[in-house]
Amino acid sequence: MEEQITYKPGLNGVIAAETCLSYLDVDAEEIVIKGYDLIELAQSVLYIDLIHLFLQGSLPTEQEQVSLEKELVQAYHLPSDILAILKQLPHTTHPMDALRTSISTLASYDEQLDIHNEVETRQKTIHLLAKIPNIVANSYHILHNKQPILPREDLAYSTNFLYMITGHVPNEREAAIFDQSLMVYSEHEMPNSTFTARVIASTNADIYGALTGAVASLKGNLHGGANEAVMYMLLEGKTVDGYRNLLYNKLQQKEKVMGFGHRVYMKKMDPRAALMKEALRELATEKGEAEIFEMCEAGEQIMKEEKGLYPNLDYYAAPVYYLLGIPIPLYTPIFFAARTLGLSAHVAEQQQNNKLFRPRVRYTGPRGLHP
Amino acid sequence: MEEQITYKPGLNGVIAAETCLSYLDVDAEEIVIKGYDLIELAQSVLYIDLIHLFLQGSLPTEQEQVSLEKELVQAYHLPSDILAILKQLPHTTHPMDALRTSISTLASYDEQLDIHNEVETRQKTIHLLAKIPNIVANSYHILHNKQPILPREDLAYSTNFLYMITGHVPNEREAAIFDQSLMVYSEHEMPNSTFTARVIASTNADIYGALTGAVASLKGNLHGGANEAVMYMLLEGKTVDGYRNLLYNKLQQKEKVMGFGHRVYMKKMDPRAALMKEALRELATEKGEAEIFEMCEAGEQIMKEEKGLYPNLDYYAAPVYYLLGIPIPLYTPIFFAARTLGLSAHVAEQQQNNKLFRPRVRYTGPRGLHP
Ligand SMILES: CC(C)(COP(=O)(O)OP(=O)(O)OC[C@H]1O[C@@H](n2cnc3c(N)ncnc32)[C@H](O)[C@@H]1OP(=O)(O)O)[C@@H](O)C(=O)NCCC(=O)NCCS
Ligand SMILES: CC(C)(COP(=O)(O)OP(=O)(O)OC[C@H]1O[C@@H](n2cnc3c(N)ncnc32)[C@H](O)[C@@H]1OP(=O)(O)O)[C@@H](O)C(=O)NCCC(=O)NCCS
Repeated sequence: MEEQITYKPGLNGVIAAETCLSYLDVDAEEIVIKGYDLIELAQSVLYIDLIHLFLQGSLPTEQEQVSLEKELVQAYHLPSDILAILKQLPHTTHPMDALRTSISTLASYDEQLDIHNEVETRQKTIHLLAKIPNIVANSYHILHNKQPILPREDLAYSTNFLYMITGHVPNEREAAIFDQSLMVYSEHEMPNSTFTARVIASTNADIYGALTGAVASLKGNLHGGANEAVMYMLLEGKTVDGYRNLLYNKLQQKEKVMGFGHRVYMKKMDPRAALMKEALRELATEKGEAEIFEMCEAGEQIMKEEKGLYPNLDYYAAPVYYLLGIPIPLYTPIFFAARTLGLSAHVAEQQQNNKLFRPRVRYTGPRGLHP
Repeated sequence: MEEQITYKPGLNGVIAAETCLSYLDVDAEEIVIKGYDLIELAQSVLYIDLIHLFLQGSLPTEQEQVSLEKELVQAYHLPSDILAILKQLPHTTHPMDALRTSISTLASYDEQLDIHNEVETRQKTIHLLAKIPNIVANSYHILHNKQPILPREDLAYSTNFLYMITGHVPNEREAAIFDQSLMVYSEHEMPNSTFTARVIASTNADIYGALTGAVASLKGNLHGGANEAVMYMLLEGKTVDGYRNLLYNKLQQKEKVMGFGHRVYMKKMDPRAALMKEALRELATEKGEAEIFEMCEAGEQIMKEEKGLYPNLDYYAAPVYYLLGIPIPLYTPIFFAARTLGLSAHVAEQQQNNKLFRPRVRYTGPRGLHP
């Protein structure tokens, strides 16, 4: 009875699910992904290998990797209606909204929509992983009155994704960094969007519905929307000095600074942010863009001194995407595309051992009124 | 620390939010809606009055009721692109999926999309309440290759809704029963879809995203989808005897019987179901359809004897909608249209006192693996 009365705003610290998918071990400062350390994975395998890990339960052999790529390639194609609907949308539509509408629409093309067993959910996941990068990249082009860029089957999965966005094949370093960014975005325990997907799936709703809800969640600037917000902030700052002033101003006005803080604090910087910081250093050097790296570091310093806050992944992913030539409104959709992997696995896990999410409230309104 | 370790599957009994909107008082067997007893409201006012109660904080005077109706009427119109997109969808699309896609698309037409203050959220709520019945009714017509039925400004809000669905103006009893069904569906504390909407809104995502996620949730047959499932079950049963056999079979096969049970059990039957049962009795008498009422009662009896379970609202709403001539795939969309009221109010409440939803997990997977 007493437990019922305890109320933790935002479910802070409340265990909402059992999962074998991932865990933030704050004491060991480790992001555990199916038994592996995410950072170790991101330094030694590829995003496609993580897909195999989630779908098959193990990292792939070379042979398995090749056949998984083939399976994905075969599902790249979008129903033509999706492109038609994207063309119908007002050009001011945010790509996250276009993505939400598109994933919702995809449900209409799945003839096995209401079958939720393991085999079917794996099949749906493959299709979602294959099609979402296509939607992300081409929603942007279509909303900008440009021709869609068709997927190239000769490129690796993540290289093709970046190619569809920018229209040119990235060099090796760029491709590797983009792939690494997808890995660190792929799964992260129980953030709001993952929780949303599981809550929805628990009614026996289908995976498209669950992922549509997750897009809606991820768009918010307290969640995935932060990466986009960080980049606008860096651009507004322009120089190291300008950026410093901007941050001091925000802090003085008690505004939240996007890209800092996390509900589940690690003792030091988010290890994913640290990895992207190194990627930024490399890219900035290669491209002769030292200032953006200096700005980011200056901001990091200020937030540590003034608020004791460390950067999260979004803080360093944003400038990395900028130097990769990615349009800013696609940062959050890319985060979603990468997270499709974790989300689909959580939906499958929820389906396999389901219990409807249905919490209670503490009522604070009046009583005893009569019409 | 110990509280963190307690794990309640499905957040059963866990308080997830403070709200002044509604409360299921199991001891008093009362559904409290802004201080009123929902059943008392449903017996004495109209759905439009509940809209006023939620948006303005009080039941309306006659004058206020008239001007609220006028405000709604002015927002009935849908962007033509929404109709075009509905036409683009495969005709096999479920109306709940069409509704999810449409609400997601509506976001593209709101120029104040990212403004979340009280005034703006009220404005958005009016537009959603005005447009969703139009979408619900006309998605069905369009998916069936029929012409949309335009809203009639001379009819009352809920009468117009039913008119757009069936294409003819209901008689007084029908209109009153439909209106009452909307009232009992309007708000119900923290069911899965309301929780979904609040979880999404807590990232600072917009109200369209929150409601899109709620449609996804409501579609599941453990939640709103149950009303549709109940009707198919009644039709499959055909006669009292056939239906009895069907239920005994389901119970023998340990299948869940849709329309029974609820996470937050009242001691007796859900008072909303009791109200709809009376409505069904009236309608069945008027229409000379006594058998459907007898079937429902027979089912009620069996479930009580065999499982100690009582019918929930969906169990009696389904046959009521059937006798009102409503196509079965619209039952859950109508539930959503009615619940738009409660959902929008929960989103507004979340925005006014926000804390990001971000729970934790109990990790059950392996540790210490290396790539
Ligand atoms: C992610 C986040 C929502 C987690 O926060 P939370 O657990 O809900 O905690 P709160 O937002 O209530 O923050 C706790 C305190 O730290 C402060 N804080 C947290 N993040 C902050 C930030 N980025 N800038 C300034 N102050 C911040 C809050 O203002 C609050 O201070 P107070 O107690 O004096 O009011 C929060 O850190 C945030 O809003 N960050 C910015 C958005 C972002 O980068 N999101 C991406 C996350 S991956
Ligand atoms: C609404 C509902 C999901 C709430 O359930 P919950 O709190 O999550 O509880 P559970 O589903 O775990 O049910 C608890 C027990 O009652 C049984 N039960 C609950 N509802 C049942 C039903 N409709 N038919 C048969 N058995 C039912 C369960 O099988 C379970 O039995 P067990 O403990 O032997 O496994 C559940 O009652 C249900 O599925 N009902 C049918 C769908 C429906 O009508 N939904 C609309 C709700 S408004």
